[in-house]
Amino acid sequence: MKIELASSLGFCFGVQRAIDIAQTNTGSKTYGPLIHNKDEINRLKTDFNVGLVDNLKSINSDDTIVVRTHGIEKHELEELQNNGQTIIDATCPYVTTPQNIVSHMSKEGYSIVIFGDENHPEIKGVKSYSEVEDTFVVANEDDLNDLSLKNKVAVISQTTKKFKDYNKIISKLISSKREVRVFNTICNATSENQDAALELAQKSDVMIIIGGKQSSNTKQLFNICKENCNNSYLIENEKELQEEWFMGKELCGISAGASTPGWIISNVKNKIMDMTSE
Amino acid sequence: MKIELASSLGFCFGVQRAIDIAQTNTGSKTYGPLIHNKDEINRLKTDFNVGLVDNLKSINSDDTIVVRTHGIEKHELEELQNNGQTIIDATCPYVTTPQNIVSHMSKEGYSIVIFGDENHPEIKGVKSYSEVEDTFVVANEDDLNDLSLKNKVAVISQTTKKFKDYNKIISKLISSKREVRVFNTICNATSENQDAALELAQKSDVMIIIGGKQSSNTKQLFNICKENCNNSYLIENEKELQEEWFMGKELCGISAGASTPGWIISNVKNKIMDMTSE
Repeated sequence: MKIELASSLGFCFGVQRAIDIAQTNTGSKTYGPLIHNKDEINRLKTDFNVGLVDNLKSINSDDTIVVRTHGIEKHELEELQNNGQTIIDATCPYVTTPQNIVSHMSKEGYSIVIFGDENHPEIKGVKSYSEVEDTFVVANEDDLNDLSLKNKVAVISQTTKKFKDYNKIISKLISSKREVRVFNTICNATSENQDAALELAQKSDVMIIIGGKQSSNTKQLFNICKENCNNSYLIENEKELQEEWFMGKELCGISAGASTPGWIISNVKNKIMDMTSE
Repeated sequence: MKIELASSLGFCFGVQRAIDIAQTNTGSKTYGPLIHNKDEINRLKTDFNVGLVDNLKSINSDDTIVVRTHGIEKHELEELQNNGQTIIDATCPYVTTPQNIVSHMSKEGYSIVIFGDENHPEIKGVKSYSEVEDTFVVANEDDLNDLSLKNKVAVISQTTKKFKDYNKIISKLISSKREVRVFNTICNATSENQDAALELAQKSDVMIIIGGKQSSNTKQLFNICKENCNNSYLIENEKELQEEWFMGKELCGISAGASTPGWIISNVKNKIMDMTSE
């Protein structure tokens, strides 16, 4: 069986940057998981003594705190600052941008619409920067129906969303509002991985998508692959691979979410090669 | 044969307002045709002594000048003002709005994209309010291809355009720009006439669309009708009606552009009744 990696996969710029920051700050603690990948977080603990705290109360005064890739809520950052904590900000710059936009637009009197997953840390963080009540997170265009919005609306998207879906929200808003200020906050890295996964899935007999089960961009990669290749499987690491997935198949494609480190991709590829070697 | 008028047709708010202004200013002159309807302009001349001047040089110092519904270019307005001319502004408020938006956005450093017909007086006027070089009129999304635009773009539409087409322009811009500030400057009156014409065309055997041959909104009405009723005819007044259009037909629908006065619609309806009465 042939194995092919997607032409673009795995770590995006923001994740690579956060890992680099964490590795150069041995002994620090990340506030919340640095990225959506348990194995990589374990590696950072083992190899670089980078710890993890989950709530503000369990932080010691001399801790150096790394703010994770997806960002945190404004009041949490302020609390850390007020505690006099040493803070190292590993928030992806592509996430800092929508945080700043939401802050600025809410001050300028716009209603705020955020296209994203309400429970995702990136979106919780971004939303917290708004200073107006009429700030809404929508998962799709139908969610716009009952919102009480001013005639001036600013819109941003979760960085990992698909442009096609963002466009549906924008179109619906524009048809009923006087001014819609649209910020394109979707990250190219996501669409590059998606395009490459799509292309590969279309010709593969089986597709393996590697990534955290909570990772928004990984779930989307999986959906795209599933639509184009029936035998698509989402795994976190090589331990989940099953031999029968590859029986009688000619081409196996591999894609990986933005939080998946290269070493896990290699492990998966090697294990598949072992499983299928005759 | 049955005759049915579209549930919404003819004069929009801005045109009705301009006619009212002209009628209350007997002896005035409009700078450019007040609306896109020769017959109505002749009626204003005959009944209210409202004249017409086509260029600034032929204006006398004691003339009272009515600025027409579609607006004029900024430098023309300034020249009239500098001449000390008495000016009565009949520009439709829905056209003044995009003029102001273009002025304001260009001062704020946005590139300007105007969706409309480059040669239409409304668009010439609106465009003239921009203070930046990178101000472009596009007729469709393909026209965006070679434009040199900043990463911040403000977009407005000619008041008479179709929302569906405007949306294509917006989608394309958003996919490549960081911020797209979209102003919904499309006038409801146009879409109301269009929706009513569509509904009527779908059930009619023959459709008569009345309006100026240069009128942008009339041309769109005609296109909508033609797509849904093969026997669609665009006329300026009842003189153009031809008896054979109605032979063997059961239902004749009538729609009319925003510049078509009620008295012309009545004339057309009456003439069709005469032609088809047994």
